[in-house]
Amino acid sequence: MIAPENLTLLTDLYQLTMAQAYFREQERGRATFSLFIRSYPPNRGYFVSAGLQDVLEYLESFHFDQPGLDYLASLSLFSDDFLHYLAGLHFTGEVLAIPEGRIYFADEPVLELTAPIIEAQIVETFIINQVHLQTLIATKAARCVHAAGGRAVVDFALRRAHGTDAGMKVARASYLAGFAGTSNVLAGQRYGIPLTGTMAHSFVSSFEREIDAFRAYAASFPNKAILLIDTYNTIAGAKNAVQVAKEMAGRGQKLLGVRIDSGDLAASATEVRRIFDAEGLTDVKIIGSGGLDEFDLERLAAAPFDSYGVGTRMGVSADAPWADIAYKLVEYQNRPVLKLSTGKASYPGKKQVFRQTGANGKADKDIIGLRSENLPGEILLGEIMRDGRTRSNLPTLLEMRETLAGDLDTLADRVKAIREPSRYPVEFSPKLTALREEIAKKNA
Amino acid sequence: MIAPENLTLLTDLYQLTMAQAYFREQERGRATFSLFIRSYPPNRGYFVSAGLQDVLEYLESFHFDQPGLDYLASLSLFSDDFLHYLAGLHFTGEVLAIPEGRIYFADEPVLELTAPIIEAQIVETFIINQVHLQTLIATKAARCVHAAGGRAVVDFALRRAHGTDAGMKVARASYLAGFAGTSNVLAGQRYGIPLTGTMAHSFVSSFEREIDAFRAYAASFPNKAILLIDTYNTIAGAKNAVQVAKEMAGRGQKLLGVRIDSGDLAASATEVRRIFDAEGLTDVKIIGSGGLDEFDLERLAAAPFDSYGVGTRMGVSADAPWADIAYKLVEYQNRPVLKLSTGKASYPGKKQVFRQTGANGKADKDIIGLRSENLPGEILLGEIMRDGRTRSNLPTLLEMRETLAGDLDTLADRVKAIREPSRYPVEFSPKLTALREEIAKKNA
Repeated sequence: MIAPENLTLLTDLYQLTMAQAYFREQERGRATFSLFIRSYPPNRGYFVSAGLQDVLEYLESFHFDQPGLDYLASLSLFSDDFLHYLAGLHFTGEVLAIPEGRIYFADEPVLELTAPIIEAQIVETFIINQVHLQTLIATKAARCVHAAGGRAVVDFALRRAHGTDAGMKVARASYLAGFAGTSNVLAGQRYGIPLTGTMAHSFVSSFEREIDAFRAYAASFPNKAILLIDTYNTIAGAKNAVQVAKEMAGRGQKLLGVRIDSGDLAASATEVRRIFDAEGLTDVKIIGSGGLDEFDLERLAAAPFDSYGVGTRMGVSADAPWADIAYKLVEYQNRPVLKLSTGKASYPGKKQVFRQTGANGKADKDIIGLRSENLPGEILLGEIMRDGRTRSNLPTLLEMRETLAGDLDTLADRVKAIREPSRYPVEFSPKLTALREEIAKKNA
Repeated sequence: MIAPENLTLLTDLYQLTMAQAYFREQERGRATFSLFIRSYPPNRGYFVSAGLQDVLEYLESFHFDQPGLDYLASLSLFSDDFLHYLAGLHFTGEVLAIPEGRIYFADEPVLELTAPIIEAQIVETFIINQVHLQTLIATKAARCVHAAGGRAVVDFALRRAHGTDAGMKVARASYLAGFAGTSNVLAGQRYGIPLTGTMAHSFVSSFEREIDAFRAYAASFPNKAILLIDTYNTIAGAKNAVQVAKEMAGRGQKLLGVRIDSGDLAASATEVRRIFDAEGLTDVKIIGSGGLDEFDLERLAAAPFDSYGVGTRMGVSADAPWADIAYKLVEYQNRPVLKLSTGKASYPGKKQVFRQTGANGKADKDIIGLRSENLPGEILLGEIMRDGRTRSNLPTLLEMRETLAGDLDTLADRVKAIREPSRYPVEFSPKLTALREEIAKKNA
């Protein structure tokens, strides 16, 4: 499958069987679903909102095409009148969300969608699919940026991201999170992300001698060459790179940098820096890569790296490849509802999140309240879609990136810690708590 | 990004910069790259070959379109003559591979591609992206099928798979691995996989009373209803389901089953089975779900479940979300090459894998040799593409599924163990070992 034209069928079968049951029962009332993460994965103290743009594009283009309808008819599950109804279905609802690039926390609704219940139900699967992935990656990538302590970090994850869509979304989410660029050319084209790249071991080994590979690359990229020096022996590679750097200098060109991708990175970088500095090549950059994540970047703080390529572990959020994200019905026909399943209980009603900031400019705590409440603090959920149309004032990817940098500045260091972060205080308002108890009593 | 028309730019920038350097140096010789997994992730004793069909479709459609070329031109990295060359580029190479559905092991080349070096290099990223994901998932899913001990397992992973492409490939790879079906409607349409589905908690909570939800669903699906009984209280839910089952029986209909998605699954299933059996409803099925993986399924072996829905942990291969897969240059212009980087050393030359089977029909060991060798045993790598055209004799998804079931039968139980499996013996042929030492000496 390379190019799906219509993703409306990319949903769970039960969304459509439930829809038919609603249709048959004439249940067409408006429903509100709330999307939130129930708990923190290991070592996470916050989440980065990401993935809304894809949700909006999907909702705007939502429709069943004829091949899709024919396929559904072939299943002997659906009635003709229901299929006829689906043929005319578009998304007409409203969406409120915490904008992409904002920080949020467990239990907080990052998105609330209100629509006729059939529409609201069918779109669940895609919405979770996109927000879950991009939130995981933006959060992991923000941790990498934090751990890199001001050094540039670039995305090398495409090859081991989970499929083509993940490869694209990892580039987008990591750039949103503060990465300096990506190796993913299609993401560069699609999202305007700066591209970055060096060379592979195969390039070096395709030449008889390492230095011939370096010379060939330098000839093609006289001002942008980054040479990979660990194919055979990192120190010998550094010496070959010095030789090529001098040849380039003789032609008025400049070697941009070298990359080390294996071995003891800290020790290699120190030795390679010494070799270059001894030759006066103090501005040749050293780039580190090879299975790095935020834990490695924190450990490498003292090593003389100028930037990092971060791939697989960020691109699959390796230490937390999933989060307990849920899309729960919280209101139906103006009746607040909840679920009491063991370990999966939810809070009823349409909600809002209020962020309270102290005199020092740091975020103090968040209150999750009912949307009808007027509590002190900044309101986090804003309307991004009304009557099935995207609002026009949405931020660009660059603006999201700036928003996130600002939000992270207001977050205490202990909440941003790479290991065992402190819990940021999140409370439920007294009114919301009372409503929940009232409904739980009724359902008990 | 919902519908990418052309994935040729879905590659790493360095593939294109290296390509330009090759182009400039007139390096157009044929290269062979070998794709293999360096080591086993935790608790893995084998891999399932998966993902080749997507690789073949990609290679056949590989071409740079005008918007892509315009974008590359805008980067000020590439020369006009190189871009002109890219405009006419198609994939013309040959691919050998271990067919989808076959078992293979660490170090074994699952795919070897031979093509002019520029073509072979640019396609690396996509090939790894697809084979890596589908291998991870097919392997994880095969473990789930094994742990389920004959009970049906279905794919519920779409919502938390990493993006849209992963959602599709998880459905495909898990079906290949022996799953009975998927909830993913688009995957049902695209791949012909049987669809399965029940209902969500939101359906139950949208009605004032649980039993009303059950009745509405039964009315819409008189012969295929599976009721979710844990929204409020599993035992009370089971009693409501009994009531509805009796009403259905009165109308000549039959309740298919109930699903339990939370709490102590084994205890709940035992109690629910007792409740149904006491009413003579012995053929109402009990389906288990809720964060299950192969470790849970093994633990649930004694519980009276009839089938399982398996989602997130399978769909992201949660305990092993990545594998150390590599695509290494092993031959260039008939010269065997290798890489010596610390911890990442490779074996040179075009290869073949020979599987030796004992008198008991069980696989004894595999030998990785040179392709030119003629060793005893079954030859695993077969040609799937020649001159850029897919061979016509490739298996269907159903055939791959049967192949895998057969291959798993030949594998000793200790290699298939869910925890700490034994290592299946894989050896390198003396000729391959000698070639490696010879080249390593030369490069040292």
